[in-house]
Amino acid sequence: MTAQFDVLGIGNAIVDVIARAEDDFLVAQNLVKGSMQLIDEDRAQALFAAMGPMTHTSGGSAANTIAGLASLGAKPAFIGKVKNDDAGKRFAHDIRSQSIVFPTQPAEEGPATAMCLIAVTPDGERTMNTYLGASQHLTSADIDRATVEASSIVYLEGYLWDPPAAKEAFVKASRIAHGAGRQVALTLSDSFCVGRFREEFLGLLRTQTVDIVFANEAELKSLYETSDFDAAVTALREEGVLGVITRSEKGAQVITREETIAIPAYPVDEVVDCTGAGDLFASGFLFGLAKDLDLRAAAHHGALAASHIIQHIGARPQKNLRQHAIDNGLAVEAE
Amino acid sequence: MTAQFDVLGIGNAIVDVIARAEDDFLVAQNLVKGSMQLIDEDRAQALFAAMGPMTHTSGGSAANTIAGLASLGAKPAFIGKVKNDDAGKRFAHDIRSQSIVFPTQPAEEGPATAMCLIAVTPDGERTMNTYLGASQHLTSADIDRATVEASSIVYLEGYLWDPPAAKEAFVKASRIAHGAGRQVALTLSDSFCVGRFREEFLGLLRTQTVDIVFANEAELKSLYETSDFDAAVTALREEGVLGVITRSEKGAQVITREETIAIPAYPVDEVVDCTGAGDLFASGFLFGLAKDLDLRAAAHHGALAASHIIQHIGARPQKNLRQHAIDNGLAVEAE
Repeated sequence: MTAQFDVLGIGNAIVDVIARAEDDFLVAQNLVKGSMQLIDEDRAQALFAAMGPMTHTSGGSAANTIAGLASLGAKPAFIGKVKNDDAGKRFAHDIRSQSIVFPTQPAEEGPATAMCLIAVTPDGERTMNTYLGASQHLTSADIDRATVEASSIVYLEGYLWDPPAAKEAFVKASRIAHGAGRQVALTLSDSFCVGRFREEFLGLLRTQTVDIVFANEAELKSLYETSDFDAAVTALREEGVLGVITRSEKGAQVITREETIAIPAYPVDEVVDCTGAGDLFASGFLFGLAKDLDLRAAAHHGALAASHIIQHIGARPQKNLRQHAIDNGLAVEAE
Repeated sequence: MTAQFDVLGIGNAIVDVIARAEDDFLVAQNLVKGSMQLIDEDRAQALFAAMGPMTHTSGGSAANTIAGLASLGAKPAFIGKVKNDDAGKRFAHDIRSQSIVFPTQPAEEGPATAMCLIAVTPDGERTMNTYLGASQHLTSADIDRATVEASSIVYLEGYLWDPPAAKEAFVKASRIAHGAGRQVALTLSDSFCVGRFREEFLGLLRTQTVDIVFANEAELKSLYETSDFDAAVTALREEGVLGVITRSEKGAQVITREETIAIPAYPVDEVVDCTGAGDLFASGFLFGLAKDLDLRAAAHHGALAASHIIQHIGARPQKNLRQHAIDNGLAVEAE
């Protein structure tokens, strides 16, 4: 069956609140640079008060990936839970204004729309503090069978393992997708997230619940509890899934059972804010798969989209990525 | 008396909502590219719904200038009216988190905090649509005598002429400042704004209500109702005020009774969003005056700050401008 959607993203629906911070701020606030940690509402308020001038944009890992796919000209959809409050309306506006199908009903009561307080240090690294709020109330009931069945690839974020009910939604989505002959992709999200759910994530690979896995170097090493990157790659290769490993300025590797395809990072003048680098790499790579490009070309799309996102504050594209890809000599359809 | 504050800004306290848009969107929405127009709440809602994915930051012309001054290391203060709502709290947070003194009490009732819906076209030009909301309720009572008297320069935006009660506040601030031996600066804000209040603005210059005037080329031409830039400069010179004229990529001119000092624009890779270019030029120039730099050096600070702000979405600095000035070889204190 022809798919109506190229990719369906399922993830935490989050608004980002981003401020520049010095390294001293991370120390004073007891934050682990480059990580994502979960915080409660009181902590969110205290941290908000302590942070500097802020930029507010829509965020959420899978949602960022879907926004990137829309900007590249793909047809994506998104499932995630906001509350019907100001932040939730802004999130929904941003998604729908890119013509992304977003069937999830907002919560009318309960906690506020999820918020991620992001401190960006002068090196461009981002340190994230997530108040999950309404996104915790994503349940199996929000997994719309028709939308899942109509999507070539279902893309799930590992962060979904944090809100307990979402895990069940995740597994339901995977089952529907495979029943309809679709592919399922997972991003490991964060090395600490992998630490929390290592056995379950490995189980997802080994039970063929997911077909494609995205990870950065730290997440991959955490998954296999090794400091040896090559050993982790070998272990991943043996899982028999398609692996996509991002390595910041070292580029990326696509891992199949037969081969490793290494591609370089695009050069950038200045890394302003690396929030969303992995998310947008996934946008480009999934775009390539959706458009039947080869794996190397798909990875180049990922690298280009990532290089765009790290040159400004925020994890949503600030230019038309399809035009940007064409301007950089990338094919946007299979020849 | 030594001044406690280098510059006190008085202006509309506004949150910016910024989206990329194609030129066709401006045509469809009947917007005049590069201008600021006032809109009511219904129009704001309709335009919000029609716009693309958004970035939300604090804005407001004089407030942007003050934020730039704080980033440069000056001691500024700000007076402007928000409501005690989410947007107003965000605005106040952003101001105060830069250690800017902000004595104005928020409104507890009445219209929402002011919002500017900004469409940024691919050429980097910004087209602004302002819902004045709570900022209309700035009155003479909000002009805190002690803060005005303690400020070397009081900086007022022409946009204050739009909300009727603010005009009176403006004149009161000027009177207090001059009574304390301080200087008063005015930005003409927008060529259409000049069109609305031309005679009053000329009156401010000719009654010595203001000592320093900032304008871009279009505003200056509108002030003197001429298409001849040189004629407008000559007319301004005869007013006997210090004139600062910004000319986008052509740089800027400082106009005194005796001379014209022309300085070039700093080169930029890409103009992403010119929102705040004039505001940040004023930051740099006022910083120079506050630090007793000569007029040429002050203008270079203005040009550098403007070149920073136009390379990202939004009108607030995204790096420490004092360090940025040092990195670019500018003196930050008089020798």
